[in-house]
Amino acid sequence: MQFHLNGFRTGNPEIPEPAGSRAAAAPAGALPEGVDVLIVGCGPAGLTLAAQLAAFPDIRTRIVEQKSGPLSLGQADGVACRTVEMFEAFGFCERVLKEAYWVNETTFWKPDDQQRAHIARSGRIQDTEDALSEFPHVILNQARIHDFYLDVMRNAATRLEPDYSRRLQDLTISPASGEAGNGDSAYPVTVTLERLDPAHEGQIETVKARYVVGCDGARSVVRKSLGRLLSGDSANQAWGVMDVLAVTDFPDIRIKSAIQSAEEGSLLIIPREGGYLVRLYIELDKLNENERVTSLNITTDRLIAAAQRILHPYTLEVKEIAWWSVYEIGQRLCEKFDDTPDGAEDCLPRVFIAGDACHTHSPKAGQGMNVSMQDGFNLGWKLASVLRGQSSPRILRTYSDERQSIAEELIDFDRKFAKMFSAAPRDPAKADGKGIDPAEFQTYFVKQGRFTAGTETRYAPSIISDEPTYQHLAKGLTIGMRFHSAPVIRLADAKPVHLGHTVKADGRWRLFAFAATEDPAGASSRLRALCEFLARSPQSPIGQYTPKGADIDSVIDVRAIFQQAHRELAIEAMPSFLLPTKGRYGLRDYEKMFCPDLKSGRDIFDLRAIDRSRGCMVLVRPDQYVANVLPLDGYAELETFFGRFMLRS
Amino acid sequence: MQFHLNGFRTGNPEIPEPAGSRAAAAPAGALPEGVDVLIVGCGPAGLTLAAQLAAFPDIRTRIVEQKSGPLSLGQADGVACRTVEMFEAFGFCERVLKEAYWVNETTFWKPDDQQRAHIARSGRIQDTEDALSEFPHVILNQARIHDFYLDVMRNAATRLEPDYSRRLQDLTISPASGEAGNGDSAYPVTVTLERLDPAHEGQIETVKARYVVGCDGARSVVRKSLGRLLSGDSANQAWGVMDVLAVTDFPDIRIKSAIQSAEEGSLLIIPREGGYLVRLYIELDKLNENERVTSLNITTDRLIAAAQRILHPYTLEVKEIAWWSVYEIGQRLCEKFDDTPDGAEDCLPRVFIAGDACHTHSPKAGQGMNVSMQDGFNLGWKLASVLRGQSSPRILRTYSDERQSIAEELIDFDRKFAKMFSAAPRDPAKADGKGIDPAEFQTYFVKQGRFTAGTETRYAPSIISDEPTYQHLAKGLTIGMRFHSAPVIRLADAKPVHLGHTVKADGRWRLFAFAATEDPAGASSRLRALCEFLARSPQSPIGQYTPKGADIDSVIDVRAIFQQAHRELAIEAMPSFLLPTKGRYGLRDYEKMFCPDLKSGRDIFDLRAIDRSRGCMVLVRPDQYVANVLPLDGYAELETFFGRFMLRS
Repeated sequence: MQFHLNGFRTGNPEIPEPAGSRAAAAPAGALPEGVDVLIVGCGPAGLTLAAQLAAFPDIRTRIVEQKSGPLSLGQADGVACRTVEMFEAFGFCERVLKEAYWVNETTFWKPDDQQRAHIARSGRIQDTEDALSEFPHVILNQARIHDFYLDVMRNAATRLEPDYSRRLQDLTISPASGEAGNGDSAYPVTVTLERLDPAHEGQIETVKARYVVGCDGARSVVRKSLGRLLSGDSANQAWGVMDVLAVTDFPDIRIKSAIQSAEEGSLLIIPREGGYLVRLYIELDKLNENERVTSLNITTDRLIAAAQRILHPYTLEVKEIAWWSVYEIGQRLCEKFDDTPDGAEDCLPRVFIAGDACHTHSPKAGQGMNVSMQDGFNLGWKLASVLRGQSSPRILRTYSDERQSIAEELIDFDRKFAKMFSAAPRDPAKADGKGIDPAEFQTYFVKQGRFTAGTETRYAPSIISDEPTYQHLAKGLTIGMRFHSAPVIRLADAKPVHLGHTVKADGRWRLFAFAATEDPAGASSRLRALCEFLARSPQSPIGQYTPKGADIDSVIDVRAIFQQAHRELAIEAMPSFLLPTKGRYGLRDYEKMFCPDLKSGRDIFDLRAIDRSRGCMVLVRPDQYVANVLPLDGYAELETFFGRFMLRS
Repeated sequence: MQFHLNGFRTGNPEIPEPAGSRAAAAPAGALPEGVDVLIVGCGPAGLTLAAQLAAFPDIRTRIVEQKSGPLSLGQADGVACRTVEMFEAFGFCERVLKEAYWVNETTFWKPDDQQRAHIARSGRIQDTEDALSEFPHVILNQARIHDFYLDVMRNAATRLEPDYSRRLQDLTISPASGEAGNGDSAYPVTVTLERLDPAHEGQIETVKARYVVGCDGARSVVRKSLGRLLSGDSANQAWGVMDVLAVTDFPDIRIKSAIQSAEEGSLLIIPREGGYLVRLYIELDKLNENERVTSLNITTDRLIAAAQRILHPYTLEVKEIAWWSVYEIGQRLCEKFDDTPDGAEDCLPRVFIAGDACHTHSPKAGQGMNVSMQDGFNLGWKLASVLRGQSSPRILRTYSDERQSIAEELIDFDRKFAKMFSAAPRDPAKADGKGIDPAEFQTYFVKQGRFTAGTETRYAPSIISDEPTYQHLAKGLTIGMRFHSAPVIRLADAKPVHLGHTVKADGRWRLFAFAATEDPAGASSRLRALCEFLARSPQSPIGQYTPKGADIDSVIDVRAIFQQAHRELAIEAMPSFLLPTKGRYGLRDYEKMFCPDLKSGRDIFDLRAIDRSRGCMVLVRPDQYVANVLPLDGYAELETFFGRFMLRS
């Protein structure tokens, strides 16, 4: 954490001074007439986006929600490794890690071969493969994740709070939308909202927005107003889900367990935070064609009885039900996540949809909340960058391109996973070969571990994600994938840190310069030459895109990683570009240089397969995805890359 | 973290429901007429004590402070490893670790042998030896530590807030004080306080208390009212201290650095949190006999000029001074930390003093705040245990015994450390041998590392800390010293955790049963026999001291550590005593059993030198100090130990 740059201030450094900004222009309790971004819906996608935009006092953001206040009882609870990495960027991962259940292992149970009415443990695996992420896979009530985001928003300079009790009535997009200025044409989206709180019930508010993002769930009014559909089919399989406090002699009640009984269906046990609570996903009857799960009139008694039958011979005595629901499995997807028509390459999006509004699937793989939050993270920096005049609005088209493919992959995965889960286990005593081999299910589960951890996401080449021309210089940092962090030692103070944790959710690009073998301080070092180029060349993207008077790292934050041990290097001999002076006092920033953590034996150059003899530049987007890998002297490529979408300041 | 035991509750699990308790009996803004404990002073000692007592709704605690509100600018800033361990017990170590500066290394600078007017780096060492603690040595503004404690108090069931703007006028102890009942004799201490806030200025409040603790600093009125003195002498050496934002080319400005110049005195650099702020301790003139530092009329300009001269040839340009002060080194100590007369073995203390009220010393070793907080932690559980009827008030005598010796050691250390710091460095070109060899200073610093880390504290045998009869069974867990944590795997959910982090600041004793080599689930295992004894024998301290209806672990929390890998053991085969049913639903607590972390190669049995063939019991006090090591079948010794001071419920 860095603070006190512009003077010492007492109190919590995580709460900056409020900005006397456009953000605060509306009277309390009412929405302003015009906003830069209107977010509809306070779910995981909307809150991630709002938390990201709240960091910028020069952007007027509002988030509206139909409910009268924050969620207090969760629905989702799975938090993938990749999501915890993102929480680190938002500054609250330590709260999640402290409070959550950690999924360390997963067990598999199947019918006992000798006694098929009994279940028996058939496998036990590590949940997440080693070194996939520096963070674990955890489980935490969605409501708590919301709380953490709301704290980020509340503590941000904009002091952003949701406007509750607002139902979206209508959304229209003005056909001729201009880009610049503050006239009506700059606010092409008109939204009408109905207030639902008793004091203002029925009042209609009209808000004009530059951009609107519909994070309003599977029945999204924003999506419908775009004329888009969620298409897909239902598998006609009903499931129940319950969060319970229970007493059981099932030995793996504190371990994530997938249980397939011979005749009574399947059960998934997800232990929950706090040591006592547990979530049960319980397979119910197959639905008939066109039958809805609600028509089954399922009661909690029936759910409990089903769970008890599946767990036989173990007992389950439910003492309290914290939350429960029934649902049918279905995978549905929207063909595009914005308002631009197909094929219209020049058309720029003004309205987006994210989260359940554009993709729904079964909850058991614990993916929904995670993918929705990554939707928000993907879109947030792009909107901020465009609204702040740093990037061309063309980058906004990449949101639908990137996230729609990811949702498609998720839906494919989920269809297969859900089918496996609902299939009866094969009986070795029967020659019919029907049903699924429990071992096959386990193998599939292991194979998909990276996918469910969220670390397999890979964006295709685009204007913000380059072709892998120089990928061989950093084989372990794949272009299009998230920057896989590794431990390093900070040169100036010898602190062991994670390099990836320098990538905060602050809308900045990162340029990691991995130095070649030579002494980086040497007059002929390639790192010194790069610093010289970045600091002084008219072609430097730093010079071209950093606003006058702004800190040198405010748009592109350059950090160097050396191969030498930290005690072998003299900080005073390094290029001064790596000790930049910042803020109103011109204080030096000492946190730009890093060395491998040789003592722990985990050398980042080995871990991420960096070409030691040549070094390289690794460009990382504000959402932590690797945008490019270039040679240390790839000045022209660097200029070309940024030149495609960045705007001169 | 465990929660939801007595039913699911939404919201932050770190904030329990408020208790409708005696704690809330007073009208807002006024002190109640009678309290169990009155703490005078909101410094580190007082807040640690208050945070500890705030956990108990059945104890009426108040803390008063002369100032009108919380501290916003710090004085102390050093946080030793041992202190972070304690913060873990209070539940806020992750906030400290995130925000603080980490002292990873220390450098030493001395006059350059060739050019003595220049300083040159003479050494660089790791600040804390490996594996001394699982936590680092950190630096953080005292005000922020206060904030964290205030949050703990505010969030506790008692919702304890300090009563500000109260000046202690007078304290009297009634000579014939009874122990039991609620009559006047149960509240033998009478305190009068003057209100200082404009709305009540000059109003006098009288409070009767069972116990009073003076945490009211070096000029403690509580100490004076006991007729006790701080004795010792001043070294007549003036120092200045400044927190600054500065620009410098001194290369180690982000590393703790001890600098001895040839002619200009010494300087200690302590980098501070946030990446920019730095604290400078600057040696000033020797004082004449009876001269006070205030008489020198030292200005910040003079402090800066002195620092600049010492740093030569490096430059220092101070941009902002966040805080500064001048002080003279002096080591002073009170002979006893309570109100009992010397030699009166039967006399029970009613008034205590803690922190600067009973020991003062120089700040440069970063010890003051740490030792003061440990005073509060030492006293807190003892007061709670006595007030809740669990222990004999005789244990209160151990507070002064234990903490006075520690303060004495600190004063001895500080005297030597301060003297070395102020001595001129020896000039190798001069044959007079005068001054101190910088290498000797560095050697002393390294040798004292464990002391300054706070991990060397060792309490002498007493009724709550046994003789080391069976110490050989756990050589790495020394009786009288803090329980040195080690990594383990929790059996029920395979989570990697630190065993020591089960010792929270909740007033409970811990009994760690380290199993012998045999299968712990076996019918003849010594662990099973111990569980049988603890669960059922009339001699069991669990049975004797746990109140009826209370959870089985509410007074003594038993945890078992096995030698086998966690996948080799079947939780369902373990003694049911280790899966206790708790709370209103009788839910099972799955967090009582642990295995070595064999994958990481750090086996707790090796790390702490536990006798593998015999196993052992390790008893840990509520303040994390090892009270006893006993054989697994040391039932009689266990009963005898607790029988010395615990009261049957």
